[in-house]
Amino acid sequence: MEERQRARRPGGRGARVGAAVHQAVTDLISERGYGKFTVGEVAARAGVADSSIYRRWGDLETLLTDVALSRLNAQSPMPDTGSLAGDLHTYAAAVAREVTGPDGLAVVHLAVTLSSNGEQGLRARDDLRVERTRQLQSMLDRARDRGEHAPDALDVLDHVMAPMYIRVLLGVGPLTPDYVDGLVDRLLSTRWP
Amino acid sequence: MEERQRARRPGGRGARVGAAVHQAVTDLISERGYGKFTVGEVAARAGVADSSIYRRWGDLETLLTDVALSRLNAQSPMPDTGSLAGDLHTYAAAVAREVTGPDGLAVVHLAVTLSSNGEQGLRARDDLRVERTRQLQSMLDRARDRGEHAPDALDVLDHVMAPMYIRVLLGVGPLTPDYVDGLVDRLLSTRWP
Repeated sequence: MEERQRARRPGGRGARVGAAVHQAVTDLISERGYGKFTVGEVAARAGVADSSIYRRWGDLETLLTDVALSRLNAQSPMPDTGSLAGDLHTYAAAVAREVTGPDGLAVVHLAVTLSSNGEQGLRARDDLRVERTRQLQSMLDRARDRGEHAPDALDVLDHVMAPMYIRVLLGVGPLTPDYVDGLVDRLLSTRWP
Repeated sequence: MEERQRARRPGGRGARVGAAVHQAVTDLISERGYGKFTVGEVAARAGVADSSIYRRWGDLETLLTDVALSRLNAQSPMPDTGSLAGDLHTYAAAVAREVTGPDGLAVVHLAVTLSSNGEQGLRARDDLRVERTRQLQSMLDRARDRGEHAPDALDVLDHVMAPMYIRVLLGVGPLTPDYVDGLVDRLLSTRWP
């Protein structure tokens, strides 16, 4: 019976290990910062063997990226409001909340850490970027499918997300709703070739 | 005679100590990264006493900021070409060269390190931002004095510098001259209230 239950919940143990490891990474990041702990320390905190982590994630960089993506997707899911303006305003507001929150610069810190961690780090950083860009691209594709004009994903990165990240990083003023809405309005009012 | 020479070059020894300490910091940053060395290690590398560093800079954060500002000012001095467009294109091109160079993300890395280093770090980061903003502001003030319309310094940060920093940080394509010029042209063609 226990066997059958286990069979009905494939990855039940895998899911518990995943959750414990993600929580351990999140705790270690907030206590020490990115790049300041090892796979062994994550394993000890999560109560799992080092080998479980290496088998599942391969290396610390991939694990960090997986945790960052899960948090990003939970905190700033890609909205689908029916209009590009609605989607972008909703998304920009979520990113603003995320980057001004307690773990605000998580993505910037992670990107800096990964960029300093050799080839593996650079690959993990690229995976993170590609996955988020893919999600953003599907929002923009939906808009084009509805017949709306839409900027490129990189234009959204350049003129909506980059200013918010850099302002928080450099400690420039609060990201007011007016400011965030203004970034989106300005992007949407630009004529694209 | 030696005394008189020394008197004629006030800070001669101070200048030598300053240069040695700056070089030691630059070397340690490229070998280990920001936040990965102590005042004691800088002093040993520079061949000076720890107390000389504390007396002159107060703490490691202030020293790091001083080094970053010296490098920024050497690598991306604020241009004065006689027109705002000329100044901004020249400045943006210099920043692009700087951020794609071997120490490319120095400022982003430093800002991340300082932001994670408590009150002293945040103060040093703010000093760095205020000093660079002051220089940019004087470029924009000169343009207004000539009767040109000019964006705010924060608009330049948001729409010219932030996109370049974030693209390099996330590993998005090269910063081609066309792309960099496009950022400036787009900023200058925006109607400011």
